[in-house]
Amino acid sequence: MQIIRTIKDMQALSRNIRDEHKTIGFVPTMGALHEGHMSLMKRSGDENDFSIVSIFVNPVQFGPNEDFRQYPRDIEGDLNKLSSIKVDIVFFPDDKEMYPDGFSTSVNIGSVGEILCGASRHGHFNGVATVVAKLCNIVMPHNAYFGQKDFQQTVVIKKLIKELNFDIDVIVCPTVREHDGLAMSSRNIYLNHEERKAATVLYRALKLGEDLISSKGLVDALYIKNEMKNLINSGPVSNIDYVEIVTTEHLEKVEKIKSPVAICIAVRIGKTRLIDNIITTGIFPFATDYQT
Amino acid sequence: MQIIRTIKDMQALSRNIRDEHKTIGFVPTMGALHEGHMSLMKRSGDENDFSIVSIFVNPVQFGPNEDFRQYPRDIEGDLNKLSSIKVDIVFFPDDKEMYPDGFSTSVNIGSVGEILCGASRHGHFNGVATVVAKLCNIVMPHNAYFGQKDFQQTVVIKKLIKELNFDIDVIVCPTVREHDGLAMSSRNIYLNHEERKAATVLYRALKLGEDLISSKGLVDALYIKNEMKNLINSGPVSNIDYVEIVTTEHLEKVEKIKSPVAICIAVRIGKTRLIDNIITTGIFPFATDYQT
Repeated sequence: MQIIRTIKDMQALSRNIRDEHKTIGFVPTMGALHEGHMSLMKRSGDENDFSIVSIFVNPVQFGPNEDFRQYPRDIEGDLNKLSSIKVDIVFFPDDKEMYPDGFSTSVNIGSVGEILCGASRHGHFNGVATVVAKLCNIVMPHNAYFGQKDFQQTVVIKKLIKELNFDIDVIVCPTVREHDGLAMSSRNIYLNHEERKAATVLYRALKLGEDLISSKGLVDALYIKNEMKNLINSGPVSNIDYVEIVTTEHLEKVEKIKSPVAICIAVRIGKTRLIDNIITTGIFPFATDYQT
Repeated sequence: MQIIRTIKDMQALSRNIRDEHKTIGFVPTMGALHEGHMSLMKRSGDENDFSIVSIFVNPVQFGPNEDFRQYPRDIEGDLNKLSSIKVDIVFFPDDKEMYPDGFSTSVNIGSVGEILCGASRHGHFNGVATVVAKLCNIVMPHNAYFGQKDFQQTVVIKKLIKELNFDIDVIVCPTVREHDGLAMSSRNIYLNHEERKAATVLYRALKLGEDLISSKGLVDALYIKNEMKNLINSGPVSNIDYVEIVTTEHLEKVEKIKSPVAICIAVRIGKTRLIDNIITTGIFPFATDYQT
């Protein structure tokens, strides 16, 4: 496993790999790797000749009052984990390499980045789009792998790749969960013992929503969201940022559920903001309206 | 010479060319080709295995009150001109192919796109950056060629390529001029007989500025700009948008000229807005201040 620190070296390597007609799989990460990341890397390793992982805590996707400074960084632990699976190259640039003095370019993804998480994290998804555009040009992958846990991010990145015409396939992999359903996240380490127990409310609320839609056949999004909110608010340390039911492609809010939807939630558990989602396919021809 | 209308076909072709280890030169144009464009294409043809020209009048770089609709379009004349030189592929997409319904991504280049032409053409350079980012991903060139006549555009594009890490060399080629010094431009056809004669004032003003700096050794930018403005205002149908002396890399306004500068001007001749520039290398160790 090779560790590359400069853009120039990374591009030279990727150019050589492509010149030899080998495929490149790419997993961009911010480090603090967990089983969710590992599942992406396993898939990238399986599906490509070369698998490249980037580790870069991207400053431009954090707001001024967010956790950029305290975001968990553990490069030794990360490299240790990576050595156990098929990863050929780790691209690990520093901030100045990615954003030298005078840097001013940004990619603006439009309204899909301003709702859900984008409503409380202003500019976040433009920061994501900017770094992903950069990383795609640096790593030059054929396939790029993202986790469904960051569902809005996957929508933003698919849109970026499609609209700026990157010749890259985006592959979204299932959310990996703890035994009790909590979605794997680098931010889970912020949780104390009590919060860790309370944090399962995200998954429980999502399963409730999924059950109301897919098993009970309810279609009234407002009712379903309220049931979910009631469950979340019954927890001791949870504070809802949003509970939304949206279309899977454009994240448009749904009132009457008629086709597959994403149930997306963001909840503060203590000071830690966690997100999660479930996509429900439902059995929509049989769905019936719920009379409240 | 192959004419390609879809992004998918263009990417497939470029992928094949690269797979065969051939180099691609790229000249993006808005059509209405003139000798300036032809000089870029000759160079692209000379320096690369394959030379690709795009013809696309990019709607997002025109303001609502600008000349998008009346911008000259002459695809037959253009293809005729292209058949006389080494151009392998013409990429000629329509608006919907480049900007399908729901398109919302834009590349924002920052303050360097908000001065000079950007001050009166709000959003213009973000539109340029967006389409060039798209075209670079579609055509996948090794080398891209731009004319110095659009000097600020070359600065914007160099910044875009560098900051989003496109693995592409940007080559800026000298402005091609008519016999009387008028810079070749697709918009010159808007000029009537009287305006065409008056339009030479741009080049005359630039040569005055260059002479004051490089021969007379003046360093007071304000004085030099005023001399140029006086010359331009003496013309019958000219209306100054700007006359500026800026650094060549970041387009910062210069007060005392100490190093190579770009003299940049934009002037309306009748209703037609024309731009031009000269880069003066000067003999700066010997430059003396001018006492007004």
